[in-house]
Amino acid sequence: MEGNGKLKIIPLGGLESIGMNITAFEYDDSIIVVDCGLAFPEIDMLGVDLVIPDITYLKENEDKIKGFFITHGHEDHIGAIPYVFKEISAPIYATKLTIGLIDNKLREHNMMSQIRRKVVSYGQHINAGCFRVEFIKTNHSIQDAAAFAIYSPAGTVVHTGDFKVDYTPVYGDAIDLARFSEIGKKGVIAMMADSTNAERPGFTPSEKTVGKTFDDIFEDHKSTRIIIATFASNVDRVQQIINSAHKYGRKVVVEGRSMVNIIATASELGYLKVPEYTLVDIDSIKDYSDEQTCLITTGSQGESMAALSRMANGTHRKVSIKPNDTIIFSSHPIPGNEKAVSKVINELVRRGAEVIFQDTHVSGHACEEELKLIYTLVNPKYVIPVHGEYKHLKAHAKIAKTLGYKSEDIFILSSGDVLELDEESAKVTGHVHTGAIMVDGLGVGDVGNIVLRDRQHLSEDGIIIVVMTLESGTGRVLAGPDTVSRGFVYVKGAEDLIDEARDLLNDVMEECEAQGVSDWNKIKARIRDALGDFVWKETKRRPMIMPIIMEI
Amino acid sequence: MEGNGKLKIIPLGGLESIGMNITAFEYDDSIIVVDCGLAFPEIDMLGVDLVIPDITYLKENEDKIKGFFITHGHEDHIGAIPYVFKEISAPIYATKLTIGLIDNKLREHNMMSQIRRKVVSYGQHINAGCFRVEFIKTNHSIQDAAAFAIYSPAGTVVHTGDFKVDYTPVYGDAIDLARFSEIGKKGVIAMMADSTNAERPGFTPSEKTVGKTFDDIFEDHKSTRIIIATFASNVDRVQQIINSAHKYGRKVVVEGRSMVNIIATASELGYLKVPEYTLVDIDSIKDYSDEQTCLITTGSQGESMAALSRMANGTHRKVSIKPNDTIIFSSHPIPGNEKAVSKVINELVRRGAEVIFQDTHVSGHACEEELKLIYTLVNPKYVIPVHGEYKHLKAHAKIAKTLGYKSEDIFILSSGDVLELDEESAKVTGHVHTGAIMVDGLGVGDVGNIVLRDRQHLSEDGIIIVVMTLESGTGRVLAGPDTVSRGFVYVKGAEDLIDEARDLLNDVMEECEAQGVSDWNKIKARIRDALGDFVWKETKRRPMIMPIIMEI
Repeated sequence: MEGNGKLKIIPLGGLESIGMNITAFEYDDSIIVVDCGLAFPEIDMLGVDLVIPDITYLKENEDKIKGFFITHGHEDHIGAIPYVFKEISAPIYATKLTIGLIDNKLREHNMMSQIRRKVVSYGQHINAGCFRVEFIKTNHSIQDAAAFAIYSPAGTVVHTGDFKVDYTPVYGDAIDLARFSEIGKKGVIAMMADSTNAERPGFTPSEKTVGKTFDDIFEDHKSTRIIIATFASNVDRVQQIINSAHKYGRKVVVEGRSMVNIIATASELGYLKVPEYTLVDIDSIKDYSDEQTCLITTGSQGESMAALSRMANGTHRKVSIKPNDTIIFSSHPIPGNEKAVSKVINELVRRGAEVIFQDTHVSGHACEEELKLIYTLVNPKYVIPVHGEYKHLKAHAKIAKTLGYKSEDIFILSSGDVLELDEESAKVTGHVHTGAIMVDGLGVGDVGNIVLRDRQHLSEDGIIIVVMTLESGTGRVLAGPDTVSRGFVYVKGAEDLIDEARDLLNDVMEECEAQGVSDWNKIKARIRDALGDFVWKETKRRPMIMPIIMEI
Repeated sequence: MEGNGKLKIIPLGGLESIGMNITAFEYDDSIIVVDCGLAFPEIDMLGVDLVIPDITYLKENEDKIKGFFITHGHEDHIGAIPYVFKEISAPIYATKLTIGLIDNKLREHNMMSQIRRKVVSYGQHINAGCFRVEFIKTNHSIQDAAAFAIYSPAGTVVHTGDFKVDYTPVYGDAIDLARFSEIGKKGVIAMMADSTNAERPGFTPSEKTVGKTFDDIFEDHKSTRIIIATFASNVDRVQQIINSAHKYGRKVVVEGRSMVNIIATASELGYLKVPEYTLVDIDSIKDYSDEQTCLITTGSQGESMAALSRMANGTHRKVSIKPNDTIIFSSHPIPGNEKAVSKVINELVRRGAEVIFQDTHVSGHACEEELKLIYTLVNPKYVIPVHGEYKHLKAHAKIAKTLGYKSEDIFILSSGDVLELDEESAKVTGHVHTGAIMVDGLGVGDVGNIVLRDRQHLSEDGIIIVVMTLESGTGRVLAGPDTVSRGFVYVKGAEDLIDEARDLLNDVMEECEAQGVSDWNKIKARIRDALGDFVWKETKRRPMIMPIIMEI
């Protein structure tokens, strides 16, 4: 597939589901990679901490890799870096705050010294093998987000990263629409744009609109303590809370590990302006009255270990919720978190607090009209919807069609698809190996489908272990069979099943002996069948049955 | 607590969470019970099929029970009947369709012959000990819903059941507001009203408004097959789909076990009018073209085993989704189901189908203005919000306050609270034992917290079993210690931990021997500690460690 004068675009992390954004761009002997994200485990990935992309393809082509370009500092774009860079060596290019957040990660993994990182400014161009990458200012729910113009010998591709159009951002400039337009005028072969909000009509409101509603809430709740839960990474949101708190004469306490970390990095790098004497330590809040206090906390998604959940269920060491509290959820529940959020709200209300949902519809992603704007400015030949679930990519494709794009010029890629393109044509020509690697504790990739299936089975009906000791040579039963169970109840009504099961197992072993069955696998299979049938008949449950034979 | 001339109201199923509606009304030697529902398991109730109320209090007072009065046929109001009536004997009173649906349950459990059931008409009064219960017509998302006026020597209580105000219902009459008003005029000491939608302002639209949107969809999709997913129990919704299908010349196929069952019962009892030759068997759909077909199916909540999910993932034996399909979700996702619904939609879209969300905001529950209407008509002295999560009960209380009720006249009861009341006063005077009993397979109540904790533990990190055989008397190790694991990966990188673990366990056993430790519990504790520490250090995981000792 080499040297045909075409650019290859290969999504490596699965575009189909949110998370794990990582895409390779390949031309001749050069590869650059855009983003390096992780995903959070699906509900059936029991016990899994996080999911990272399988980068076999990059490892096989490591000599070609000229650099990683990161669009912004969210976990689904930077989270896999510590894992991927244990296996691959390449420089990382990103804007200042993004590098700051990557550094936090590398520090945690003791990897600061081994990776080259370069802070890039908007407008700057980076040469990387056959490629040149230009950083373009965009807006998103974290500062310092960038889009990329990727110049290759086969033509220019624009990658928007996650973006919205915010004409009145809280910090810094609006998205550089003029530059998108200039690049568009020179000719763009393909655009990869954010699909997350493609199902939503209209425009996403400016982040600044949230500030006004904070002021209103502070005005209306002058005599209560105010606790606000939001995403740790939304520094602009935190800035606006601090502004309102300062305006209304309140001290601000930041609580929750990720919140504290990101605020520290953002302040240090100058992305957050905190008026003097406004931030106080959590241990000092006892020195201030309720009406002088405002807490900003993690837990807006009902995460059970986050600060707000611990305050709600009474396990937070320093803050407990009381009737004179006003609690503001300043974020929509992400699909799948609704029930957890409800649970926290019920606990807060039960403790007498007033709970307010700040239903702003402000998001970090472009809605339908913003996508149309970007397409009209950039005017790419081919459309590659990225970032979002499959239904979002489809909705994005539908918008492109309303703008006049034909189906054959729109590419919804699956993870591993190799799209080859130049100014004349675009076509999926192959497929490389990709996949999701589950990280559980220190284990990376050792949890596979069999382990997950076992965990699922164990979680539903538990396990019955059958142990026995056989005499070497004769196969005579010396001890057992005995049964032990966990996660399974071996009692039906008042009647105890254990005796019946033991009789059954003795019968199985006698039968094996009589029929001369001495192969352990056969004996185990008979035990599994007999006990499984018996337990199903008696309880309509299917615990895992695990025979263990010892020999002396 | 007897014979003081007061009425006792005792919620027995936990008003705090949705589901398990069951409330005892007690006066002197008489108890009547309103509703007998089940709940579906919370996410942390691993492997549990359903949850039923602990009816210890009813069993202890069985001689007093004069009857069960059921408001309507939803699972959270009738689902526990087969379990409760295995332990208690009493007549059941309900409207025709409700009895029909209860009969379906009793038939499944082979309990038809042992329970007296009486069909009651609206306006009819039933005498039950000291009580008299009047059935009042209401509207809900299932037909034949009733409110109760419960007349006792201490005064009258109105229980709305689940209700909405529908002036133009699809089937039957509007809610009997005039009767609520008459009863109110005569004096009502307390009202227990539905809180589910208390957070929603305004009025719930009529079910009939959905019919118009079905017509529009059928009009706009004349050339595709139409598949509509909705709740099995919403017979009025099904009626309107059948009406539109008939109007547009389509045959209707009903698919999904619960859908087929309820439709059969509703048709048989006359609650569903199906034009001749409209319903066809699923095996006959191959005889009709796409534009002649309409499927009504279960699975609108993304339930993984429901018909729509199986069609979406290609495991349905008779229907597979294809590009010429229009699929309509005619129901909002219940909180907690959003992600499952999204998953099904992505699969449908991936197969090329068009997916439409019928976002009608039509619900079966009264919104704020409907609650105000009922309060104004019934004018009870005391307010007892029921049905809904805690935050809904609180929102309901807030509405009552806007109507002039004082906090001390509003009672948000917890499960087991005994509210004693008459015309003069109302007060929580005691608490009876209640609880949630988990049903898993045939086991009722045998799954407790320890079993759930074990399942949780097993599901997260799996299990390592350590087996060995000791010599009786000497305690000498004859075989093992050997280890076996499930749901846990015993490999770290390329390096195998099993050998190291075996060495460690041998050391533990030698130490035990040297120190004369022969108590099995002590040996097991040492194994658990040593292996647990080792595994944590090496993998940062905490599998369940289960030592099993045999003796010969």
